[in-house]
Amino acid sequence: MQDITRLILPDVREHLAQGDHEDVARELERLHPADIADILSHLDPEEGAALFLALSPKDRVDVFEHLDESVQVDLVERVGRGPMVEVIEALSSDDRADLIQALPEETRKEILPLLAQADRNEVRRLLSYPEDSAGALMSTEFAAIPPDITVREALESLRRIAPSRETIYYIYVLDENQRLVGVLSLKDLVLAHPDDRIQDIMTKDVIEVRVDDDQEEVARAVEKYDFLAIPVVDDLGRMVGIVTQDDVMDVLKEEATEDAQKMAAMEPLEASYLRSGFFELVRKRGTWLVLLFFGELITSQTLAAYESTWSSLAILVALIPLINSSGGNTGGQSAVLVIRSLALGEITPGDWFRVVLREIGQGLVLGMILALVGVCRVLFWGDAGNVVPEMRLALAVALSLLTVVTLGAFLGSTIPMVFKKLGMDPAVMSNPSLSVTMDILGMLTYFNVVRLVLQI
Amino acid sequence: MQDITRLILPDVREHLAQGDHEDVARELERLHPADIADILSHLDPEEGAALFLALSPKDRVDVFEHLDESVQVDLVERVGRGPMVEVIEALSSDDRADLIQALPEETRKEILPLLAQADRNEVRRLLSYPEDSAGALMSTEFAAIPPDITVREALESLRRIAPSRETIYYIYVLDENQRLVGVLSLKDLVLAHPDDRIQDIMTKDVIEVRVDDDQEEVARAVEKYDFLAIPVVDDLGRMVGIVTQDDVMDVLKEEATEDAQKMAAMEPLEASYLRSGFFELVRKRGTWLVLLFFGELITSQTLAAYESTWSSLAILVALIPLINSSGGNTGGQSAVLVIRSLALGEITPGDWFRVVLREIGQGLVLGMILALVGVCRVLFWGDAGNVVPEMRLALAVALSLLTVVTLGAFLGSTIPMVFKKLGMDPAVMSNPSLSVTMDILGMLTYFNVVRLVLQI
Repeated sequence: MQDITRLILPDVREHLAQGDHEDVARELERLHPADIADILSHLDPEEGAALFLALSPKDRVDVFEHLDESVQVDLVERVGRGPMVEVIEALSSDDRADLIQALPEETRKEILPLLAQADRNEVRRLLSYPEDSAGALMSTEFAAIPPDITVREALESLRRIAPSRETIYYIYVLDENQRLVGVLSLKDLVLAHPDDRIQDIMTKDVIEVRVDDDQEEVARAVEKYDFLAIPVVDDLGRMVGIVTQDDVMDVLKEEATEDAQKMAAMEPLEASYLRSGFFELVRKRGTWLVLLFFGELITSQTLAAYESTWSSLAILVALIPLINSSGGNTGGQSAVLVIRSLALGEITPGDWFRVVLREIGQGLVLGMILALVGVCRVLFWGDAGNVVPEMRLALAVALSLLTVVTLGAFLGSTIPMVFKKLGMDPAVMSNPSLSVTMDILGMLTYFNVVRLVLQI
Repeated sequence: MQDITRLILPDVREHLAQGDHEDVARELERLHPADIADILSHLDPEEGAALFLALSPKDRVDVFEHLDESVQVDLVERVGRGPMVEVIEALSSDDRADLIQALPEETRKEILPLLAQADRNEVRRLLSYPEDSAGALMSTEFAAIPPDITVREALESLRRIAPSRETIYYIYVLDENQRLVGVLSLKDLVLAHPDDRIQDIMTKDVIEVRVDDDQEEVARAVEKYDFLAIPVVDDLGRMVGIVTQDDVMDVLKEEATEDAQKMAAMEPLEASYLRSGFFELVRKRGTWLVLLFFGELITSQTLAAYESTWSSLAILVALIPLINSSGGNTGGQSAVLVIRSLALGEITPGDWFRVVLREIGQGLVLGMILALVGVCRVLFWGDAGNVVPEMRLALAVALSLLTVVTLGAFLGSTIPMVFKKLGMDPAVMSNPSLSVTMDILGMLTYFNVVRLVLQI
């Protein structure tokens, strides 16, 4: 797919430079709007605006829908108000609201009055839902019919409304109070007898989400039931919108990226990496790095406090990175297992006891394996025996590793579950913050075990 | 959603224990098959098999499709061959092939001969495609029509074949050689005039994937074009299957989990966390932990080699965790940014220079920030001045932090891109393996800078 873009890009650039708008249009004629959007995103902002204006009004809408939000905002600023308002009015309600929200204050104030009254009210209503809720994700263009018409009448009604609906593959049956009483698919309609009544063939137990449900919950439902779309109802059971499978796919993708960034200890980016500002990146990374740095200052302090223990014995210092990294790495594995399982709904905080038992078991076995390697290393170190008996040192290292690794597995699995229970995001328990915690606990464990076993 | 399951589960258990199959059926009557699957997965294997047999033959198929593979395999082993073969025959071709592949050798040999000849051949053909390819993911039940019929004839043909097709929302137009020449949606058909010819209203530039394309590529295409399904063609351009949006959602979910596990340094699990064997977990985690442990042994060795540098000055030892974690954390952030951007197709290895310049810039700025905090700490440490001038020590720490953090950003961004370029998985460059690398390089940098600046 991307190869197409790469092949055509230089030609498009040249035509644009020469102002040959017809050649540009010819070059793009047979491409899918998503591919044109791809090309547009790879152009300089000015070239992009020129290409956009070279498209037919219909194509502009189709291409615009496939652009990243940051490119969309750029275009709104560069393209004249006239053609832009036409595009914005033609967007689906959810895309329109997202765009308006992403615009700079100033531009938003200019654009809003140019929209039709009904669209403006709808934007306001959609923007009033909390971010990341079903309401903020949904589109209001769904296909609805009353329960007491025939299949033939339903198909006729669909023909009329289809062009303005996000999908007509699911048709929702609403009573006179807009309450959702049934659902059927276009496939059901096509297969049914033209004289059948809708209320007799519709599915009555409709699975729905509420307008204030979290988008992750919505995504999980769509995925679980393999729906093309899920209906969204308000507090009174009235249907207000649908969330479609492609919206859900965007949510899943976005959440996976955000989780990965959080787990690597940084504030999630809003735009893509290359489109994020340099100092925005510095801020989102730096805040966490400085916090972690302060954490490691405590490790330093701990280390300094045990100077009398390690100052006489070089090998004790040399083994510090082993102890610290073993606890951190094991904890990181436990955390990622629990965080992903929570995200996929495979486990809930209610499974805490079962998970923690399992992780303590894992920690003990993994700790023994690492302790074995560690003991071998100590016994072959060579010069430790001058000061303390090698076997004792090996015992101290083994005990430390076992404790630290088990502790890592325990904390790595428990902390994300506690976070979840408290309604916080488990992914914030990042690998690095766990490492800092384990460094501090590792040093405390290590030196106390050493003091105890070696009697120094 | 999950609340339903939790509420009903105890009742279902009780009815099962008492052998009241009719009560079980009544309890589940109004539930969606996905919810019944959810309940079944939370039962003991024997209870699960009993519940499965209490369902009607039609429900068995619907519920089975929503079960995780490991639960499916369990059921095949426990439920009698007769009812099971009925279910397997009714599955869609892709689900059937996946199940057959997941069965233990022995069971597979028993089941295969019980299937109809045509199904058996199809399973063999689907299993012959490489794992994670479009061919292994696709279903062969798509709706196809010839180009020279009318819309009315097409709708009639659809009514006949619909029940056995995975989706009829996209209808593919094939010529007499099964080559894909066009596509239209059910919406197009419903909106068209009954006497229109298919070839006049179909879309001719069909976007397709090839049977040996990687599943990630397929997922990216479906996502990019917002398709409900994408056609799969063989080397001769003949259409052989479709990959639907819900298959793609499963791929995305699976890849996100696998990437997260790889980035936390463990071999990805095949089943969910709670369903993975205890010692399978130990192996998948232990292998990496031991490898990382060996890596940290090199850090120990490096540390030991510089004993003469640090033995006289406690603060030098105390600062080790600061230096090491700063490099590792910054590198981890860079790695996750690059790995996710590569996964989303936002950057390619061709963008290396641009990305690396950016990351070196990030490293320098972030390094300066951390150096500033580090310098403050050193100046307020209190007792370093006894041995070396405090300002000099502060300078050494600042220079080390700046170097290590920049190096971390450089390696964290470069290594995943090199891996990608070499055709390897960039996510294998995990946070922990980067930490080990940065620990070793951190120690080398730190002690050499200290020697140079402090002249010890």
